[in-house]
This record gives sequence, C-alpha cells and structure tokens, in this order.
Amino acid sequence: MAAEPFAFNIDSLPPDKITLFDIRYDIEPHKSVSPWSWAVKYTLYAKKIPFHIKLVEMVDIPALSKVLGLQPGEGFTAEPMYTLPAIYDPSTKKAIVDSLAINMYLDAQYPESPRVVAEGTKGLIKAFLTAMKNLDYACFPVAIEICLGLTTAKSREHFRSTREKLLGVKIEDITPREPEKVAAAWAGIKKVFDTMDGWYGDNTFIMGTDVPTHADFVVAGRLMLLKEFFREESEEWNRIAGWNDGRWGKLLKYCNDMWVV
Amino acid sequence: MAAEPFAFNIDSLPPDKITLFDIRYDIEPHKSVSPWSWAVKYTLYAKKIPFHIKLVEMVDIPALSKVLGLQPGEGFTAEPMYTLPAIYDPSTKKAIVDSLAINMYLDAQYPESPRVVAEGTKGLIKAFLTAMKNLDYACFPVAIEICLGLTTAKSREHFRSTREKLLGVKIEDITPREPEKVAAAWAGIKKVFDTMDGWYGDNTFIMGTDVPTHADFVVAGRLMLLKEFFREESEEWNRIAGWNDGRWGKLLKYCNDMWVV
Repeated sequence: MAAEPFAFNIDSLPPDKITLFDIRYDIEPHKSVSPWSWAVKYTLYAKKIPFHIKLVEMVDIPALSKVLGLQPGEGFTAEPMYTLPAIYDPSTKKAIVDSLAINMYLDAQYPESPRVVAEGTKGLIKAFLTAMKNLDYACFPVAIEICLGLTTAKSREHFRSTREKLLGVKIEDITPREPEKVAAAWAGIKKVFDTMDGWYGDNTFIMGTDVPTHADFVVAGRLMLLKEFFREESEEWNRIAGWNDGRWGKLLKYCNDMWVV
Repeated sequence: MAAEPFAFNIDSLPPDKITLFDIRYDIEPHKSVSPWSWAVKYTLYAKKIPFHIKLVEMVDIPALSKVLGLQPGEGFTAEPMYTLPAIYDPSTKKAIVDSLAINMYLDAQYPESPRVVAEGTKGLIKAFLTAMKNLDYACFPVAIEICLGLTTAKSREHFRSTREKLLGVKIEDITPREPEKVAAAWAGIKKVFDTMDGWYGDNTFIMGTDVPTHADFVVAGRLMLLKEFFREESEEWNRIAGWNDGRWGKLLKYCNDMWVV
C-alpha cells in the first residue's frame, strides 16, 4: 500500500478547545492504546477541560511534529524520537509534547483546576517514570504481539522495525508459547506490580490525597492498555485487576469513571 | 576466627542524643560505606540534630534488630532481611529502621528543622528508590569486589555468600578484567547517571529548592560510596564527579560541606 502524503494545517483545528494528538490504532472504541495519551486524557477530564482528539498515523508523527514546531524527545528508549501525545491550545497558540510537560502546562494554564503535578515533584515523577519502565519491559513478552496486531496497516512495518531494533529479536520470538514460559512472564509482571504496590502502601492514590494525580494517571494508562489488549472479560485482565487486593482494578475504574460522562 | 557473641543493651546508649546504628566496614576514617546510612547522616546534619554512631558487625544486625524490636524489611533484594541503618531516640524510646522511615520520623519529631520528605511524596520517593536500583546494579561489576575487600574479617564470608546468592556468580567472576569489558561496565554506569541527570534537569536539588532533601541525600550516599571505594584522587571518582557538567561532584561536595563541621 502506497503511503498517503501527510497534509496538516493548524488552522483546521477547533478554535475553541484544546486538541490532543494521539496515535491511531485499530481498536474500538477509542482507536487509542498509548498509555501516555491516557495520562493526558485523564488529566483533561479531572480538570474538566473540553478537548478534541485528533488521531495521527504513527508514521506521520515526525511530519506533524515539524508543523507544530515540536522537538523530538525521549521515546521508549533514550534515543531522541518524535512522540505523541502532544496538544495544541488555540487560546495561547502553543503546542506541547510529552505527557508530563503537557500536564504541567495544564496545571499552569488552569490554576483553578485540581493540580496533577505537585510543587517540586517534577524530578521525583521523572524518576517514577524511569521505574515504570520495569513494567513496560516485563509486559513486552505478553503484550507486544497484541499491540502489533492493533497497529494500522500504514504503520505496522514501522512499529515492527523500531520495536525489533529495541528488543534485538523478532516480535514473534519474544512472545512465550510454552505454558512454563508464559507463567514465567506473568511472574515477572506480578513482581513489578508488587513493587508498585509497595510505592502506594496504605494510599489509594500515590500522593496520599483523595484524588489521583499525574503518577496515578500514568499507572492507570498502563492498566487501560493492558485491559484493552486482553479485553475486559479475559482471564489475564482480571488477574491483573485483582492483584494486591484489587488495587489496580479499582484505580483504573476510578479514573475511567471520571472519564466516561 | 570464632565469632564473638553479640551483647547489646539499650541502656548502654547515650541518654541525651539519637544513636545511629551503622554497618562496620574496614575503611578510614568513617568505618562506614552504607549509602543508606549516609542518607540518614546527611539528614541529621541538615537538621542539626546531635547524634552518636554505633558501628555494628554485619552478622550481628539480626541480633541487634531483635533487641531493638525492629522488623526485617526490604534489603537490596525484595526478600525480607534485617537491615541497617536504624536509629534509637532516647527522648521517645523509639527505634526506627529504614532510611526513609527514619528521615520521616525525624521530620515529624523535629518540625522546626528543614523538612526532607515533602508532604505527599513518600510514594514517589519509593518509586525513585526503585529507579535507583539501576545504579546499584550498574555499579556492581566495578564496585562489589572493592566492597568485599572493605568488609570486616568477621562479616566477610556472610557478605560474600549473600551477594553471590543474589548475583548468581562468584564476586570475582562479575568483575570485568579485560579493557573492553571494563569500558562496557563504565558505559552502563554513565547511562544511568545520564538518566538521573534527566530527573534533575535544570535543578541543583531534585525538588527544585535551594537545599537538598531525602532523594538528594540518597544520591549523595551513592556518590560517597563510590568516592570512598575508588578514593578521592582516582581517575574513576573524578570521571563520575565530572559527568553531566560536574553535577555529581558538586552535589556530593554540598552534602559533605554540611557534614564536616
């Protein structure tokens, strides 16, 4: 299939609300699996900020970023790459990339709304994001082949080649098939959730407040991805949701209940 | 050498100041290398709280912990183990173990002194501690044989067997000897420091304040360990101190300047 040329004009965006640029996947109903995008969507909803979603093909992210004047940042490796989510705010004519930077912008721009990145915590949140990579790496074996299957036809080869370069093996080769290897992969995922449970301790939300903040939305974004990958009724999702006294299922439900009007 | 029996009585401790229990190593001048102990010492100094150090043989930590009524916690693995540092506060007759728990106790007990764990940040700090394990693991190859050489005769075999069980190989076998393997180990360490540099960004201290807090003291504790292992004048220490525009040398100097009266 020949790639369609990418055409994009900022003037085509809604003039009265924030646009969230998210990566298009072939999954209903949201067409979205990016946990980083969910971290922004949950924040927009917690702040009750109206917004519009524009889905972008993965292969078009560099071209879009250049139109918006966005710089490449850290992707899922430390190599610079153009990433989404990004937002465009017509009221300030500003475009922002990176979920933490976006949420800090929203905190600054909407000071009356619930703050999601507390004063002075940016550095600790970045360390938290480093620690969260342990979950991403633990989930790769059981999740990445599902993710490949959800990419659009236009972006599938790009997804495959970038991820295989990162992982050093073919996607099909890291997916465990034998029961004992599947069990070992799940034991690795459980171990990371147990560590995360230790971060939360007695708290429902990580800052010990009665409402979630940025780091909770990052965790919920990961949970949403796993739930959508495996589907709500699956054994796999219900296993995760029930771990650590049901903490993860409850956290995601809280965030999604904010989300669904 | 026959192990001396461990004898310890709480009444033998100074009645007018906090006692910090630290692990005894054969290194001058501090007899101490534990980065977790440094994280408490820097806090005690930042708060100007007088204290007394009691050095404890590694093999005596379980017996001491039982006398003090302390529970085993997370060590450098997720397995429960008795650890130091711990403190005993004669004014409240309380003993506390674990550097984060100790520093939170000191925040609560000395509310007029500079706070080192900001409200609501305990969970994020725990995630930061998870991320810091990346540095510990990256440093093992070049540092653990040095650490073994600094253990006391009484505790050396215990140190060796517990660490080899964790690492799955003999300590001598994980230490790189060939120049290209040494270079690869250092490249791994540099990569972790680059990630940590990203946490700090434009900030001198991680909370963006003009004074260091708990997480900075944890980092400084790691730096102090590396400086003491390699010695101040070594190429290795000066390499680390100079990385990321000299950030790490400056951070350690700030903390040590608080420390040396």
